[in-house]
Amino acid sequence: MSVMTDSLAHPARSEIRIESVLHALADPVRLLFVRELARCGCEGAPCGSIELPVTKSTRTHHLRILREAGVISMRPEGTARISTLRREDLDTLYPGLLDSILTAAH
Amino acid sequence: MSVMTDSLAHPARSEIRIESVLHALADPVRLLFVRELARCGCEGAPCGSIELPVTKSTRTHHLRILREAGVISMRPEGTARISTLRREDLDTLYPGLLDSILTAAH
Repeated sequence: MSVMTDSLAHPARSEIRIESVLHALADPVRLLFVRELARCGCEGAPCGSIELPVTKSTRTHHLRILREAGVISMRPEGTARISTLRREDLDTLYPGLLDSILTAAH
Repeated sequence: MSVMTDSLAHPARSEIRIESVLHALADPVRLLFVRELARCGCEGAPCGSIELPVTKSTRTHHLRILREAGVISMRPEGTARISTLRREDLDTLYPGLLDSILTAAH
């Protein structure tokens, strides 16, 4: 298994924990990223296409927390990484949670 | 203004921030306390009546985070402190949030 694969590990739906999801979303920068991903509404967004007011390493840190909590999935595509909101997983596990947070975050 | 009053300051509804609410709830002990408060369904519960698997000082710390985030209110009653879930405030600000979290926390 390559390092790249390891570094993009994702929890299965059954491994997602509400505490981790709440922690991942309890940050204005991560909330901004998730809101932009949700607003995009497309299949996925290249990581770099959503601007965040942080350095590249801080950005990487935030995206890792979101990914490890099960909020977003990331896949490599060429030299880019494509982020997708795990809306189906979150809506199934916690009906209404994501919508209430996305609405509130404005 | 007494120290007691200061130590039980609460944010007004308009001061409650989604990031703080999510952070307050992103902890298993605090989630347990909030779930017990919600299950109680009464006007309020004496702080000590809900058992938590932590020391008294840790418990005080957790309750302060919940109070300062606007998740619970606390009022002194004799030598006890009565905790109440701020359900109306939270449901008004973030419709569906609390219910989705309370359901998920089991």
